[in-house]
Order: sequence, then structure tokens, then C-alpha cells
Amino acid sequence: MANSSIVESKVDVLVIGAGPAGLMCAQGLKRAGVDVRVIDRRPKKIAAGQADGIQPRTIEVLQSYGLAERLLREGNQMHMARTDRTPDVTAPTARYPFEVTLHQGAIEAIFMDSMRSMGLEIDRPVVPTSLEISTDEAELLDPQSHPVKVVLKRLEPEEGQNETEVVRAKFVVGADGAHSWVRKTLGITMDGEQTNYIWGVVDLIPSTDFPDIRSKCAIHSNNGSCMIIPREGDKVRLYIQLSDKEAGVNSETGRVDKDKIGAEQLMEVARESFKPYRIEKIGEFDWWTIYIIGQRVASKFSVKERVFIAGDACHTHSPKAVWKMTHVLRGWADISLLKTYEFERRKYAQDLIAFDKEFSALFSDKPKTELNQNGVTHEQFLRAFQTYGSFTSGIGIHYAPSSIVQAEHQPQSAQQTIGMRILPHVFIRAADARPFEIQDLLPADTRFKILIFAGNTNDEVQKARLGKLAEDLGREGGLLKRYGRGDGSGIGNNLRWWDGKGVGRDVFDVLVIGSKGKEKVNYTDIPEVLRSHWSKVLLDDTDMYVRTGGGGYGHYGIDPEKGTIVVVRPDGYVGAMAPFEEIGDLEAYFSAFMKS
Amino acid sequence: MANSSIVESKVDVLVIGAGPAGLMCAQGLKRAGVDVRVIDRRPKKIAAGQADGIQPRTIEVLQSYGLAERLLREGNQMHMARTDRTPDVTAPTARYPFEVTLHQGAIEAIFMDSMRSMGLEIDRPVVPTSLEISTDEAELLDPQSHPVKVVLKRLEPEEGQNETEVVRAKFVVGADGAHSWVRKTLGITMDGEQTNYIWGVVDLIPSTDFPDIRSKCAIHSNNGSCMIIPREGDKVRLYIQLSDKEAGVNSETGRVDKDKIGAEQLMEVARESFKPYRIEKIGEFDWWTIYIIGQRVASKFSVKERVFIAGDACHTHSPKAVWKMTHVLRGWADISLLKTYEFERRKYAQDLIAFDKEFSALFSDKPKTELNQNGVTHEQFLRAFQTYGSFTSGIGIHYAPSSIVQAEHQPQSAQQTIGMRILPHVFIRAADARPFEIQDLLPADTRFKILIFAGNTNDEVQKARLGKLAEDLGREGGLLKRYGRGDGSGIGNNLRWWDGKGVGRDVFDVLVIGSKGKEKVNYTDIPEVLRSHWSKVLLDDTDMYVRTGGGGYGHYGIDPEKGTIVVVRPDGYVGAMAPFEEIGDLEAYFSAFMKS
Repeated sequence: MANSSIVESKVDVLVIGAGPAGLMCAQGLKRAGVDVRVIDRRPKKIAAGQADGIQPRTIEVLQSYGLAERLLREGNQMHMARTDRTPDVTAPTARYPFEVTLHQGAIEAIFMDSMRSMGLEIDRPVVPTSLEISTDEAELLDPQSHPVKVVLKRLEPEEGQNETEVVRAKFVVGADGAHSWVRKTLGITMDGEQTNYIWGVVDLIPSTDFPDIRSKCAIHSNNGSCMIIPREGDKVRLYIQLSDKEAGVNSETGRVDKDKIGAEQLMEVARESFKPYRIEKIGEFDWWTIYIIGQRVASKFSVKERVFIAGDACHTHSPKAVWKMTHVLRGWADISLLKTYEFERRKYAQDLIAFDKEFSALFSDKPKTELNQNGVTHEQFLRAFQTYGSFTSGIGIHYAPSSIVQAEHQPQSAQQTIGMRILPHVFIRAADARPFEIQDLLPADTRFKILIFAGNTNDEVQKARLGKLAEDLGREGGLLKRYGRGDGSGIGNNLRWWDGKGVGRDVFDVLVIGSKGKEKVNYTDIPEVLRSHWSKVLLDDTDMYVRTGGGGYGHYGIDPEKGTIVVVRPDGYVGAMAPFEEIGDLEAYFSAFMKS
Repeated sequence: MANSSIVESKVDVLVIGAGPAGLMCAQGLKRAGVDVRVIDRRPKKIAAGQADGIQPRTIEVLQSYGLAERLLREGNQMHMARTDRTPDVTAPTARYPFEVTLHQGAIEAIFMDSMRSMGLEIDRPVVPTSLEISTDEAELLDPQSHPVKVVLKRLEPEEGQNETEVVRAKFVVGADGAHSWVRKTLGITMDGEQTNYIWGVVDLIPSTDFPDIRSKCAIHSNNGSCMIIPREGDKVRLYIQLSDKEAGVNSETGRVDKDKIGAEQLMEVARESFKPYRIEKIGEFDWWTIYIIGQRVASKFSVKERVFIAGDACHTHSPKAVWKMTHVLRGWADISLLKTYEFERRKYAQDLIAFDKEFSALFSDKPKTELNQNGVTHEQFLRAFQTYGSFTSGIGIHYAPSSIVQAEHQPQSAQQTIGMRILPHVFIRAADARPFEIQDLLPADTRFKILIFAGNTNDEVQKARLGKLAEDLGREGGLLKRYGRGDGSGIGNNLRWWDGKGVGRDVFDVLVIGSKGKEKVNYTDIPEVLRSHWSKVLLDDTDMYVRTGGGGYGHYGIDPEKGTIVVVRPDGYVGAMAPFEEIGDLEAYFSAFMKS
């Protein structure tokens, strides 16, 4: 019998919901050394269905946690889209210029295995039954207080285990899906409206003579519309647009009657749109569902900067709150930093929904033909299809100026936009000429990366400028010592992160990138204060066999003589730039949200 | 107390020695489903020192087992060599154009973890005490007989465990190091001679102002000669050439007296050659040793095709016997196939030693100066250094014609030499435009790969030729059905191998590579008998963003209109070629060693 007394506990961050959004957030927090707990209402992880394509930017984000490798190995890579064999994603700067499809269970396993290796398991099946946020202003302003009270109920308590628990948390993340309990409990409304577009989804292994079955493909015919999404192994997902009649909508309630339709009925509709090609299933259906597209965004993404919603609960993908919560919890940043979560993420969610609406309408219209002059032309459709790809890839995300995006020195770079994620590019290490993708040297380890594009260090004037910069940065009370927690460095060794030895407590990592090649530069040419380790000096040059690298200054649009400083936020977005002589502006940037 | 009675057991292959060579062989056999056992005299795996650079071809071989990823992650990559910043390896066609350095314990762990995941552990500490091979000719010719009797002694028997065991094996692999007990027991002599070159080796973390400390570097000065090999993490290995006096050679015995010298003394010699740069150690020495270069090769690599020696025991690296033993054990190939092991490997070992001798002599000479006109010039030294790299990389290995190398149709390809490993190149999959390195589609899964370079399948004449080829290959009694074990296919799904679902029992895997691009070809255009799965059709084209792929027919020097057939052996070497109309020659190739 379960124990009916109530236990109380404390935690820094309670994550409600162990779907992809919750898990991604939790593993990031755990990796940063934050005291985190995850609960989920499901008794165990799901096996099939749900989820969908993982977009190029999301793959980059996964890689910043060292988790992309397994995703790329296990998932299906969707490179090509029909109808005239265009790239699947319109994002030429993407490091991974394709979508990956993998079922939700496998995606969750990547996160859970990573969490398990760090000693964090999911508590399940557990549901929250009440959530209250303190109204005491002083308490709310103190990042070390526990102003959120959540009551949890254990659904399958073991003998002697408490059924009810009161958790006091510093922060709560509600990643509990489209029907989020956290969102409803906080009284956050959804902006926008339910559409009338009804879709059926089936996952199956097909037997077909349709030659594009392994490409992302929109079939848009008078016999109906259908979308093909190739999945891992031989599986394929079909999205099938349904009329009210096909979907069996109850004319009185307006609701889909799921008892009236099944996977076989969906396949019949799909078969029509495939004609003159044939499609049959091999074996059983893997999964199927019917849904009405909802194009709504939560009106708020957080309450009092203490409870945040993420994932389907608010229609945003990446839990960008990780580094912000971590910096606040460590006492490095002011709690106001957390206001930027909603500021940055809600706009993207809104844009996405607006686009989705337009695209769905286009998809529902019949094609333009002799008899239907008002129909959608192939060109219109194709253009929308490509724009959609560009938009949803996440590569185009551009955060507006705020306390953490300072765009004043944008002219320092003609190609790298401040507020966008750092462009991928390959540089070589000065000491050993080994090529590295710059994004791999900027992992999501909660540190700010100071990239010093050093310019032409063989030029005497530039060498003097760099020497002066080293002096300015390294001095007592200078940027690195002031915000670098005074531990003498502000400079860490990022080998540590990749070695799996966990996160240090450094605020900064400094990398120097010279514009001249390996024949001209030794890593020992760079002032010692700017290179804490031999691995910290990079060059804009190719590898030994000219297979990769080179042209980096041009790629970023940075002056190869004079260079510049680029500040990359812990989430990989460029927060600020400054010429060597304007590091006062960088001090101002950090002082806006960091405590010295 | 140990049990003093003697147990008897049987095994297909007994591997003696669990160093890198033995482990690589054992994991390959286990992966192929062979009944294999490994013994080692060491109580546990070693932690530091020993072993050295892993060469480019060895990395390709590891990748053919899916094991390169971890090596590349854990090891140090040595891209650049001094003195004028040349590539470390002179092997422009290498897929991995660099050496990797990683200590032997870590290399062994890669193999052992892989073996463990397949349920194979090493039996240790165990030594062989006797080895006998049957003299019964009939028994020796029967691949299912157990003609090798090995007596094993358990050095640390547990309570009740038998100390002595008699193992009867079908085959034995002696991978028991430079002082191989197996080699000595079989009475195999070493050809060649001991040199007088004495080297000291130290592993340390350096503190130095020498700018090339992270490049492979030969310091060749009047103060002495020294070689720098950067290792994983911050470690560096120094090879230090020693005079008899420095090495403390006993003038009476001619042997090195290890008690008279230590790591500190070696460092003092190294420090001299580093001048005017300084070098000191941080922390303790990781490992050190002194050795006299031995430039000898075993006179035989096998006895009666039943016992083979591998690794340092015979101065060869890759255990190439795996697929050969597997095919014989499965009853697919005649036992005479095993004669090709010595034939192919011994010549390479001899060439390597000959070169090593030349290089060592050069290295020992003083540099050419005003006063020493007979010295070695910088250019001579550099040339030798580069040739050495080209040679030891393994990329240049070229097996002479034999029962498994049929070079008659060499004119079919201007760039891919028959008898050399298949050149790496990126093709795209026709069905989804996903790029693949061809070597990754040719894993060491014991199957022969039939690459059908299909040429221009949009041309009607070529289409007819391909149709005819499909008919010829697929007919009853044709190549695929005759040697493909009559299981209806001879064609498997290589997804299975990568999915870790183990090896099938297919003899062949057939891949089709068209010369026209994705806009022109559907995978469904290829005759069904040649594509057992949608993933089996490739195209010579770039990926969607033109980042990789394309130009493959030119790379291999194959006619883009007419194509050709290339047979790749299970170890990745090209065994034969033939135009579509000459598949009789391929039938003859296989009939020379395969049983139908």
C-alpha cells in the first residue's frame, strides 16, 4: 500500500513533461550542473508515431550538446523534395542541409541515455495536481528562493511510497504538450483559431512503383492532396488531406468521430491521389491518427519569470531557457535576463503559425486546370513549398535587439548578422593544422565565446593592435576578469567539455582566429593572455590537402587585415560585435545583464 | 584450489594474444559469426605507452567495421609535419589524410567493447604451453576438422577451475607480439638483421616554446636527432636517437643496460637537440622505454594454412585472414584460399622493413654543413620523410595477381588499380539524393560487392546492355545464383549490417551506380534483379547543395557511357573487373576459389 502522508522536497528546476522539448531542456540543465527533476504522466516512453522532421537548426543545436551523431545515424535523412527535385530545405548556410525523420521514442532515447549517463532518470508516472507561484515580490526577485509550489501525485506508487509530494522549485518548465496542464493552470490563453483543415496520418512500409517515395513529396491533384515524408528504415509517413465527409465529421458537433474511420480508410483516400501509381502497405500499419490543424500560439510564454512553457505547449521548439536559467541560478546574471525568453521565442512561433496558415490554404485548393482557372498553379505551389522549407528550417531565426542582442557594430561583418546563429565554417588549428567546424568549438556549455578575429598578425601595426587588445582584455577590472568570476581566467579549456568531464564554471571561452595561413603563423605568435591552451588559436586556411576550410574571413564578411571581435552567446547566437578599440561597448553589453 | 584435471574443448579459431592485431582479427571473426576464442598472458589490459600512429589505411579498415568514429574522437589527429609544413601523410587519395595517435590501452578498448557487445570476452591470464598440428593430410584438407592441438595454462585459476586445458582448433592465429611464442614454437625464423640503432622513447606533457610541438616533427641537428609525435590530449611522444654511450650499452655484451639510464637521462639528450628552444615536462613521465630497431620479417606467415601469425609477430598490421577463414569455415571457399594470406601480406612487410632501414640510416647521419660535406642535406631528409609517409600509410598496398586478384580487365578503369583498395568517393543515392562515401557501403561484412557502373542508362543501347546483363547475372546457374549459395538472392540489404543486426549469409551484395544525375534517373529505371532494395542504386552526382559528390566516373577512370563491373573483395580490395559482355571472366574468377 502507498503511504498516504505527504512529503516535501526542493529542487532548482522542475520540468513537467518528458517529451522531446522537456528532455532537451532537462539534459541541458543537468549538463550545466543544475539541480533538475523531470516528471511525466506516461508510465514509459512511447514506441512509435508522433513527432516529425527534425529541422536543420535543431540538428545544429543537438550537435552543440554532442548529440547529433546518433540522430544522424538512426534517423532518415531527407535531402530531396519533389516535384522538380529541389533541395528539401531552402537554407544554403545550414550545416546539415536536410531534415531528419525519426520516431519520437528514438529521439527521446537519445536524450534519456544522455541524461542517464549523468545520473538523471525520469520520475513516472507522475502528474502535477496544483501549481502556485508566490506573490511576494522580494521572494520573486531572489534567484535562490523557491517561490513555485507544485503538488505532485504518483500514479503507480510502490509499496510504502508516498502518493503525494509537495515540491518547492526555483523554476518550473511546462513542456507538457499541446494540451498543456501547466498552461491551462496558469490561465494562459491561446491566440489564434482552430482551422477547418483535417488531416489523416499513417506510417507504413510501402510497396509502390512511385519513384519519389524516398523524397519529401507533395502530391497535389484533383484526386486529392497528400504529402509523403520518408522515415527511418523503409517506413514512410503519409499526410492525407481529408474532406469533412472523408474524416467522418459529425455534422452536429463538428468533431471528428474517430470510431468511424481507420488507417484502411485513410489509405483509400491516399491511393486515389497516388494514381496512376499504386501504393500498398507491407505488414501492419505502424501508427495512424487524424487531427485538425491548430494554428494558435500561447499568449504568454512565462509567468513572473518563474514558470516557463516550452514545446508544443506554446508552439516553440528549442528550450532556449537553459543557459539563461543556469546563469541566473549561478548568480552570474540578473533574473531579468529571463524576460528575453518570451521576447525571443514568441515572435518566431507567431511567424511560423502565420506562414503555416497560408500554406495550408494553398494546399487545400485544387490545382489550376482548364476547367478550374482559380486553382493553384504548380509554380505558386512550388514557391510556397520552398519558402516553407526556408522558414521552418530554423536557420533564418533572427532575434531582435534586446539586452542580449546588441547590433550597433553590425558593420564589422557583412555576412554574419548579429542576432542570428553563428554561421558554420571550417577553420584549421594553428598548432596542428587539424580542421574544425567552428560550431563544434562553440558547444552549448553555458559559456560565452569571445571570438577574436585577429586579422593579419604578420603586419606590425595589426600586431600592435592585438597586443593592446590583449592588455585591455586581460587587465584587472577588464572584461574577462570583471565578468569571468575573478577566477583568474575567464578562459577555459573546451577539451574538457568534449571529454565528457562536465562543465566548468567559466563564463568565457576565448578563441583567436588569424587571417593568414599555416605557413605564416605559429600559435606562439599570439599574446599568451589570449591563448589559454595551444588549441585556442585557429587560422583561416585549408587543411593540408585543400579538402576543407579557407575563405572564412570572406564567408563572415570580416576585414582580413583588421579583424573584429564577435561575441557568441551560449546558445550559439551572435550577441554583439566590436572593433578592438571599442571593447567598452562589450563591457556595456555584459553589464546590462551580468553581475560583476 | 585449482582443479588439476585436464579439460578438453573445441573451437573454430583460437586467437593467441589480445593486442591490437589479435583483437582486430577476433572482432572481425566474431562479427562474421565465427566461433572464436581469445587468450592473453596479461592479467588485464595495459594502460599507457606502446603502440603508435594509426595509419590512414588502417583507419579505413577500422571504418569498414564501423569502429573509426571512436578512434577519431579519442585519438590525436596528426595532420601536419615539419619541417616546411607538409602534410603528415603523402597519400592524396586517403579518405583520412592524417595519422591518429592513441595509446594502446584505448585502441584495445575500442575492440574489446565491440567484442563485448557481441558476447565475446578475453580469457586471461592464460598462456599456451604446447602447439601441435596434425600431419594427417586428409584431416588438413577438411576445413571442418580440428587439426591444431594447443595446451593452455591458466595462470590465476579460480577455486575449482581447471589449470590446464587442451583446445582443439580448426585454425590458430598467433598475434602474440614481437617475441611471439607461436612463431618460435613453429620454428619460423626471422629474416633480416638487428640494427645498431638505439632509440629512447618518452611520453610526457611538455611545457615548451617550440612552435611545432603539435606537428609530427623530425629534429635533425648536430646536437642530436629527435622525433616528435603529438599524442592524445596534451601528451607528446619523443623518439630520441641515442649513441651507445648515451644508451649505456655494455661494451662487453653489446646489450642496453636499462638500469643505467632513465627517462630523465633521455630528456637531457632531447633537450640538447631542441636548442635553442626549451622543453620541460609537466607532471610525471607517462611512459618510457629504450629499444634497438629490429628490421626483420618472419620467413613464413603460416604453417599448413592452419596456424597464422599476425601483427608484430610477423611485422604486418591488418589481420587480413578474417574473411578468408570465414569463407573456408562456411564451406564456401576452398581451403587453398588461405595460401593467399602469406602471399599478399609478406611482400608488404618486406618492403616496409627495407624502407625503414634506409630511413633509419639517413636519420642517424649528421646534417650536411660547411664542415661536414658528407652529411645529409635538408632536401634529402625531407624527401625520405615524405616517401616514408606515403609508404607506411598503407594506402599504396598493391596485391599482385593471384587466385583472388585477376587484373586482365585493368583497361576498364584508368584510375582504379585492380589489387589496390577501392578508392574512396562520394555518390548519391538515386531514391533520396543522400550522399554516401562508397567505402561506407562496402563494409567488412565478408560479402563480395559487385559494383555495376551502369553508365548512361538514359541511352537506349546502354539500357539494352544493362537489361542483358541483368538477365545474364540473374539466370539459373548464373554468377549470382551459382555462388550466391542458391538462396534466391545473392543480394542482401546492407542496412542490416549497420543496424548492428549482424551478418547475413549472403555471398554477394550488388550495387548499381549510374553516370547520369538525379534529374535524369529514377531508381525504378534499373532492372529489378539488380536492385534488391531502393537503397542499392547510386548516381554519380552531387548532393542538393553541391557540397560533395560528383565526378565519380572520372575519379575511377570509367567510361560514363558504357560503364563496367568492379568486384570488390570483402576486405575492400578490388579483385577483378569485367565489361558487361565478359561476365564469363567473373565466373572464372570466382570458380578459382569458390565452391558452387
